[in-house]
Amino acid sequence: MQLGMIGLGRMGGNIVRRLLGSGHHAVVYDKDPQAVAALVSEGAQGAASLEQLVQQLTPPRAVWVMLPAGAITETTIEQLGQLLSPDDVVIDGGNSFWQDDIRRAAALAERGIGYVDVGTSGGVWGLQRGYCMMIGGPKPLVDRLDPIFAALAPGRGEIAATPERDGRDPRVEQGFLHAGPVGAGHFVKMVHNGIEYGLMQAYAEGFDILKNANAPTLREAHRFDFDLADIAEVWRRGSVIPSWLLDLIAAALARNGTLDGYSGFVEDSGEGRWTINAAIDEAVPAEVLTAALFARFRSRREHTFAEKILSAMREGFGGHKEPSQHPDPAQQAGPAKLKPKEDPV
Amino acid sequence: MQLGMIGLGRMGGNIVRRLLGSGHHAVVYDKDPQAVAALVSEGAQGAASLEQLVQQLTPPRAVWVMLPAGAITETTIEQLGQLLSPDDVVIDGGNSFWQDDIRRAAALAERGIGYVDVGTSGGVWGLQRGYCMMIGGPKPLVDRLDPIFAALAPGRGEIAATPERDGRDPRVEQGFLHAGPVGAGHFVKMVHNGIEYGLMQAYAEGFDILKNANAPTLREAHRFDFDLADIAEVWRRGSVIPSWLLDLIAAALARNGTLDGYSGFVEDSGEGRWTINAAIDEAVPAEVLTAALFARFRSRREHTFAEKILSAMREGFGGHKEPSQHPDPAQQAGPAKLKPKEDPV
Amino acid sequence: MQLGMIGLGRMGGNIVRRLLGSGHHAVVYDKDPQAVAALVSEGAQGAASLEQLVQQLTPPRAVWVMLPAGAITETTIEQLGQLLSPDDVVIDGGNSFWQDDIRRAAALAERGIGYVDVGTSGGVWGLQRGYCMMIGGPKPLVDRLDPIFAALAPGRGEIAATPERDGRDPRVEQGFLHAGPVGAGHFVKMVHNGIEYGLMQAYAEGFDILKNANAPTLREAHRFDFDLADIAEVWRRGSVIPSWLLDLIAAALARNGTLDGYSGFVEDSGEGRWTINAAIDEAVPAEVLTAALFARFRSRREHTFAEKILSAMREGFGGHKEPSQHPDPAQQAGPAKLKPKEDPV
Amino acid sequence: MQLGMIGLGRMGGNIVRRLLGSGHHAVVYDKDPQAVAALVSEGAQGAASLEQLVQQLTPPRAVWVMLPAGAITETTIEQLGQLLSPDDVVIDGGNSFWQDDIRRAAALAERGIGYVDVGTSGGVWGLQRGYCMMIGGPKPLVDRLDPIFAALAPGRGEIAATPERDGRDPRVEQGFLHAGPVGAGHFVKMVHNGIEYGLMQAYAEGFDILKNANAPTLREAHRFDFDLADIAEVWRRGSVIPSWLLDLIAAALARNGTLDGYSGFVEDSGEGRWTINAAIDEAVPAEVLTAALFARFRSRREHTFAEKILSAMREGFGGHKEPSQHPDPAQQAGPAKLKPKEDPV
Repeated sequence: MQLGMIGLGRMGGNIVRRLLGSGHHAVVYDKDPQAVAALVSEGAQGAASLEQLVQQLTPPRAVWVMLPAGAITETTIEQLGQLLSPDDVVIDGGNSFWQDDIRRAAALAERGIGYVDVGTSGGVWGLQRGYCMMIGGPKPLVDRLDPIFAALAPGRGEIAATPERDGRDPRVEQGFLHAGPVGAGHFVKMVHNGIEYGLMQAYAEGFDILKNANAPTLREAHRFDFDLADIAEVWRRGSVIPSWLLDLIAAALARNGTLDGYSGFVEDSGEGRWTINAAIDEAVPAEVLTAALFARFRSRREHTFAEKILSAMREGFGGHKEPSQHPDPAQQAGPAKLKPKEDPV
Repeated sequence: MQLGMIGLGRMGGNIVRRLLGSGHHAVVYDKDPQAVAALVSEGAQGAASLEQLVQQLTPPRAVWVMLPAGAITETTIEQLGQLLSPDDVVIDGGNSFWQDDIRRAAALAERGIGYVDVGTSGGVWGLQRGYCMMIGGPKPLVDRLDPIFAALAPGRGEIAATPERDGRDPRVEQGFLHAGPVGAGHFVKMVHNGIEYGLMQAYAEGFDILKNANAPTLREAHRFDFDLADIAEVWRRGSVIPSWLLDLIAAALARNGTLDGYSGFVEDSGEGRWTINAAIDEAVPAEVLTAALFARFRSRREHTFAEKILSAMREGFGGHKEPSQHPDPAQQAGPAKLKPKEDPV
Repeated sequence: MQLGMIGLGRMGGNIVRRLLGSGHHAVVYDKDPQAVAALVSEGAQGAASLEQLVQQLTPPRAVWVMLPAGAITETTIEQLGQLLSPDDVVIDGGNSFWQDDIRRAAALAERGIGYVDVGTSGGVWGLQRGYCMMIGGPKPLVDRLDPIFAALAPGRGEIAATPERDGRDPRVEQGFLHAGPVGAGHFVKMVHNGIEYGLMQAYAEGFDILKNANAPTLREAHRFDFDLADIAEVWRRGSVIPSWLLDLIAAALARNGTLDGYSGFVEDSGEGRWTINAAIDEAVPAEVLTAALFARFRSRREHTFAEKILSAMREGFGGHKEPSQHPDPAQQAGPAKLKPKEDPV
Repeated sequence: MQLGMIGLGRMGGNIVRRLLGSGHHAVVYDKDPQAVAALVSEGAQGAASLEQLVQQLTPPRAVWVMLPAGAITETTIEQLGQLLSPDDVVIDGGNSFWQDDIRRAAALAERGIGYVDVGTSGGVWGLQRGYCMMIGGPKPLVDRLDPIFAALAPGRGEIAATPERDGRDPRVEQGFLHAGPVGAGHFVKMVHNGIEYGLMQAYAEGFDILKNANAPTLREAHRFDFDLADIAEVWRRGSVIPSWLLDLIAAALARNGTLDGYSGFVEDSGEGRWTINAAIDEAVPAEVLTAALFARFRSRREHTFAEKILSAMREGFGGHKEPSQHPDPAQQAGPAKLKPKEDPV
């Protein structure tokens, strides 16, 4: 089958590669001509503009947009709306906000153009492992694209079958799901990322507690110098908490047990935030997912204004003067830390 | 090798079975004679009392205690301290508090008896999959017990090797870890369970958001009826969040997509609590692990007194009368829920 | 000065009463003619429709809309936009979303009509204590309305002056603040309510801990039967945590120490939710305000689906069967609660 | 009445001053002779050692210990146990852990010496405003000390009476409460401080959201430059959230609207931690109080190890490289922050 691909970053490029490897055809465009050239050398057909890309595709066309969520995706899909013909379909495979999908699909529908949103997971491993895809859109369009999804998905592989799934959609076990109408794909992907944040933070806090189990302020009999790499490794084997994320932690800690290269500054992307917004709209308590998001926000501030407000109050009622800079981190923990101070308030 | 086992519940019994299957010998005791008889019929040697068990073991003895954490374990280990001889070793394989290990080991050491604490993970699957073991104690004792641990551990199996582990303790890849001195095993197991709570809650909140995405109070274009079983399944395949816990969710949802049989009442055990206590001692922020614990506490209350305090304040400043009972859950979510009320306060 | 008032609920009605008491004039409208009649009997001029209300006001008119946030406010302001003349001003004194203010003000500006948003706090006590007002809009309009705000505000009263405020806007000490351009008033009111939720939850959790200090599962020497009414009262006097909210708690507990009349079901309104959305937009960690919101969400569910997911996992890995109903609440707390269970996982 | 005072820091010294001002007598000791001399010059009787202090007091003696919680208090009370006579009473007015009270009282009881624990609140303002006291101990002892407590308490002052308190202990309205047996005083004070942390954090987060409402990454129409000092001030007047803590914030912001002198490093003391431990023991969810504590922990770390774990995972699955240092804080917030990145995972 033939697919147009716009955006040849790590995700877009590898999706094309995986398609080519399965015998599909791809017409590719990126604002960076070198990215186009690279994929042409691997068998794709190159386009120098959106217009060219559209012209080189045989109707009914399928054009996959794999760009950063936000303005670039928005503009590109608007332009495609001008260039494509009725019965063509735009696929947004990026991390778009699901409400944007609903709006865009309605706009394209006025011109008879279809829209499918695909939450695409797999990261840098997708080329090799395949991509997990959560798809929203009208059934006929999703079915028409089935060969593309089947080629990109991991397939059943060696992952154990879940019992009692007889009679259910077999595509799911291949690694792609038609989750519902337009927006459903990105909604499910959004929650996937929300969960991802929560899982990551749970592991992170656990390892932080292990790491600080040797704080000098703890009583001596209560200090442990743990080998975190070994702990991560042993948990991969027969415990309750093995996961792919734990595999990654084990690998990182085996490489460097103190994770020296990392600053501790952690980005977040839109999905984590939208997940909390969705929880609030639905009145669903989501403490853990929210705490995970806020931990990232906090990681990017040297100090918050909130903290200064706290110190100002403490000085106001108790005359407490906070230290003016970070003390020796070794002195952070435990009861011994509580410095003599005669002013209970 | 020969092992005494006290406590033949699901964990203790299956540990004995796995040992017998590897050619080891076991002398077993349980307060329930039928549990003893069952294992005798499978090849173990039965004892009718702690005294008998000790007599039937050849010195230097190794006695594994696999009882509920708390008073029963405490008493049993005290009794063993009276019955055992110097150079014997007591293994606490249950979910004891790590500070209890340190205290008990010191008491036994006065009589020359050794102590090893083993955090044992694997649940009902351990017989088949093997047990992940986190071990605390003196190196000579742990080494002496190596054949036992090796038989119980899962072994390398088909789990992919972590890169860059050359030169590290190969036992870890078998699924057991000598984590440090006495207490270290249960400390690591404690944090394992703390993480487990966090991971579980992260998945749980995510599925709750998916489940409530069809709340009638949401705007119509923003409602989705998701098939949660299929979502769990597709995430097992190529996404960022596969794990054993997700496998279990996928299986449960495939069986019953609305989880009808479950009340929503969720127990917690000591480890989750002790993990938070440890975080507090170390001054480590652990938002996610704590929120996961508190969600369980809350699940077991019909209402909290805190909530009544809130309502009392709301009535005090705004004259708000809260509904006297749970309204139609279908009316819970979203902005439409906000009933006309003319009293901004 | 003359003011039109639309919406004569507890807030709107009392605002009119307070204005009348200060010698101002009011033309009032409500869809309920009895509400209009009541205020007419107290000196207001009644209107039977929006049209009448507009006709009875002398240009340049000032019309205060005091309706529930949402559709009713929206429609009413749209209608006023058709009826009013250039240089008139609409005041939204309800709990509107601040982004709606910006949109509405822009629409009215096209017809030369002004818009001022007023976050109004004070609840059922406002008539007597005065209203705290947070105001957004263009300076000339806010200044024009100054006599209205001055009459509604509490005035300096007996509240101690804050030091070092010389040279600052004296209106603030009267209890009203021109916070910024359109939207600023409701933004500040929104955060006020967000903080309100956090404060309330902090007190609520503290009293819950006191209340449960006598749980039978705690060790006997560690149980206390506290008199919560007396504790609330003593904290009002010389402690660090006196507040108006604490006054309300003290009063409620003096009336009934177990708060028997309250179900524990707690509503929330839009401001608490929007506060968290704002925090997320700004990447500001807001753990406490969010937790306070989620506690209310949780209070309105008998159980969450998340909790059932937890139980399903627990059964999956450990064979744990959760109790099918709420146990005796007296059995909830403490370590003794941890029932014998031989399956550490 | 005569009181011995050990520990003449800000709290102990001012307590003596307030007693002297009410016509009571004090024998004072501090390891710093200058502190003793200062109070002697104000009318107290000085002692050069614990022994002297005991000798100078007329039996039955009352000795108030006002030292930092922990080792110093522990040792001092042990020494007093050797020096005092039956029927004497030790008062621990510091911030001791309530379980320590129970243990100490039992030890002193063996020698016939009484023990009373007093949670003392009031901070640097106590001399002037009086101290709020939460008292644990046997009724006869507490009654015997009534003149001391009455002199230290604020008295009814101008604080409005709570309705429906007829027939209740009138001492509570003076500002001191006999909360229960030994330990009860410090338990109530502990929860007071736990609530204090929660309240403080609620205000702090709210002001942080206001402060960041002008982040350049927000859409222009959605930015506000708020005057935080004025907002704090207006909320003191007629809103729902006035409190003494808000008074302190208003004063600090009036002095310096950006709180320049504060580092953002925030200490915590034992009570906040013990409050969470108590909640956990009682199985009471206490999200807000815990989040407030963790925010302080986090404020004292440049980065957590948890954050590095997050970055290691992000690099593992997505190839994401986190920035190596804090970016321009002005670039932190909002959707525009989400940098183009083509790798949805």
